[in-house]
Amino acid sequence: MLQSIIWSDGVLQLLNQTLLPAKIEYISCRDWQTVAEAIRRLEVRGAPAIGAAAAFGLVLGARELITTNEKFWPGITEIAAALRKTRPTAVNLFWAIDRMLSVASRYDQGTDPAIVVAALEDEAQAIAAEDKEVNKKISLYGAQLFTRGEYAVLTHCNAGALATVAFGTALGVIRQAWAEGKIRRVFVDETRPLLQGARLTAWELAQENIPVTLITDNMAGWVMKNGMVQAVLVGADRIARNGDVANKIGTYSVAVLAKEHGIPFFVAAPVSTFDFTIASGADIPIEERSADEVSSFGGIRVAPEGIDIYNPAFDVTPNQYITAIITEYGVLRPPYDRAIANLANNEKINLRR
Amino acid sequence: MLQSIIWSDGVLQLLNQTLLPAKIEYISCRDWQTVAEAIRRLEVRGAPAIGAAAAFGLVLGARELITTNEKFWPGITEIAAALRKTRPTAVNLFWAIDRMLSVASRYDQGTDPAIVVAALEDEAQAIAAEDKEVNKKISLYGAQLFTRGEYAVLTHCNAGALATVAFGTALGVIRQAWAEGKIRRVFVDETRPLLQGARLTAWELAQENIPVTLITDNMAGWVMKNGMVQAVLVGADRIARNGDVANKIGTYSVAVLAKEHGIPFFVAAPVSTFDFTIASGADIPIEERSADEVSSFGGIRVAPEGIDIYNPAFDVTPNQYITAIITEYGVLRPPYDRAIANLANNEKINLRR
Repeated sequence: MLQSIIWSDGVLQLLNQTLLPAKIEYISCRDWQTVAEAIRRLEVRGAPAIGAAAAFGLVLGARELITTNEKFWPGITEIAAALRKTRPTAVNLFWAIDRMLSVASRYDQGTDPAIVVAALEDEAQAIAAEDKEVNKKISLYGAQLFTRGEYAVLTHCNAGALATVAFGTALGVIRQAWAEGKIRRVFVDETRPLLQGARLTAWELAQENIPVTLITDNMAGWVMKNGMVQAVLVGADRIARNGDVANKIGTYSVAVLAKEHGIPFFVAAPVSTFDFTIASGADIPIEERSADEVSSFGGIRVAPEGIDIYNPAFDVTPNQYITAIITEYGVLRPPYDRAIANLANNEKINLRR
Repeated sequence: MLQSIIWSDGVLQLLNQTLLPAKIEYISCRDWQTVAEAIRRLEVRGAPAIGAAAAFGLVLGARELITTNEKFWPGITEIAAALRKTRPTAVNLFWAIDRMLSVASRYDQGTDPAIVVAALEDEAQAIAAEDKEVNKKISLYGAQLFTRGEYAVLTHCNAGALATVAFGTALGVIRQAWAEGKIRRVFVDETRPLLQGARLTAWELAQENIPVTLITDNMAGWVMKNGMVQAVLVGADRIARNGDVANKIGTYSVAVLAKEHGIPFFVAAPVSTFDFTIASGADIPIEERSADEVSSFGGIRVAPEGIDIYNPAFDVTPNQYITAIITEYGVLRPPYDRAIANLANNEKINLRR
């Protein structure tokens, strides 16, 4: 399995996910601006992967500032602010940057900047290493939701190894359940406009010989109606205190369809995806992206000129559609406000509060 | 407005809808095989348009047989059978061929074939002319369902002038309601895999300066959740005796979403789309098309090799999701079995029984 993020010899290598599956190419990031641009362009995407990439971006930025003396501290603040602006919805980005700044803030401003940079590099590596561990735990908890052999599952977008540092959240659960003989096939929504399902999820699963059936997004309801799937599993970009989940556009439609067909709808996400500062999904900013993503593909225009295009990158699924949320601390069940408050009260957990 | 079907000087001109909106090109059909191929390839598509095209295809086939004497009658039967095999779901194809054969059957087998061919040509022209009239009536009845100025509507696929001989069914209603100042905007699902919404519907509406917002199919639920549309209007490929409606894949998902949001879901279709021989949607054959339609986009492969692809071209929306069915004889309301039985009992109506 290819790694989406590799930190090696002080260079951040990001697998360019916009070129997959046709081309495997890494972007070598030697400065924070290249990282910021890669996040904006979705060359690195997926909430946990964005968080880790931004952490390393801050390391690269801080390293450049080592010799600037009095500009070091304000420089770090500026770079953190710029990285925060790359994408608005996935909270892991803000969580990772907060965590990095919190490490820096432990040092007196008179400290040799090189010492601070070394601490930041350690923290970024810890974020990445923890993400792998977290995903393994999510996968083990999630697989317990399935019994042997019955299930075909549906997933939307990509919450796989590519969306994280390794293994994946929703796809981590699927991998684990597959390994335990608990699922037999994965239906993958292609996920327009950028086709992360077709390009990334189908590709990840095919590499491990997990049986995949690719469908267009508008087939999900018909697949459910025909009894072809028994569960839905998706990732998340931000989860509010009441359990409302922001995730890739189309997730909400899939959740409504699952409810109508009596199919459980599971969300898999690390606690870094929970935003304890917001009460509900109404407070989650939804990124709108360029009209070109919808009107063109591969450079070929498919829609006429002179029309409006609406292109929200995410939607919010209200908590009542969600059967369970799988985290590295176990499976949360409704009522989510109570379950998430319990998470928040766990002092060992590094939440966005 | 371009015409999808033109019969002129004994040649059938079919607007090649696979090339729109980039290129306007007609296919000149001088033999029935070219018509059959155009139907199979979706160069002509839309239930009423397929019916009219097949009728003219039979005229072209019969004309070739004029000089064959004893081969004339079996030849017509063979060509009719071949045309029936071009696509399985839209019933208008079978309805139009039945109607043509019924005209032929009025003649004694000793009749000069040229006389029969002339009668067939008249009948095909009647089918085409009636379709225009029928769509105008549907549009007027449908527009009565709307009150002034409140509505943005959502449509899926293309049930417009291109899908019919002229004006359209669902888009006919939209055009009429727009002209009456009763709707202000149309949201159009792009309709993967073949993008009839983006390529055809958005284009038809833009040509008439009706405000269009194009979305990907997976945005429909979010658009409804945000109160952006107040009604859904779609066409149909086949309607069973109980009011179950086969239409372009994705229609069922939109219907479920509309119900969840309390939004009326209207189907507009001529009586030639009703199949009185079947009790429910379970009896409607659903065409599955090539995997390439899903795995490629604009000629570019987007999915990895070695995976399965499911590509049903249609789905069935059960009658309980349908607020009303708009026909040229008025608006049908539940219970549909009774409303459709009333249609069938109207001796003036040429139904598939």
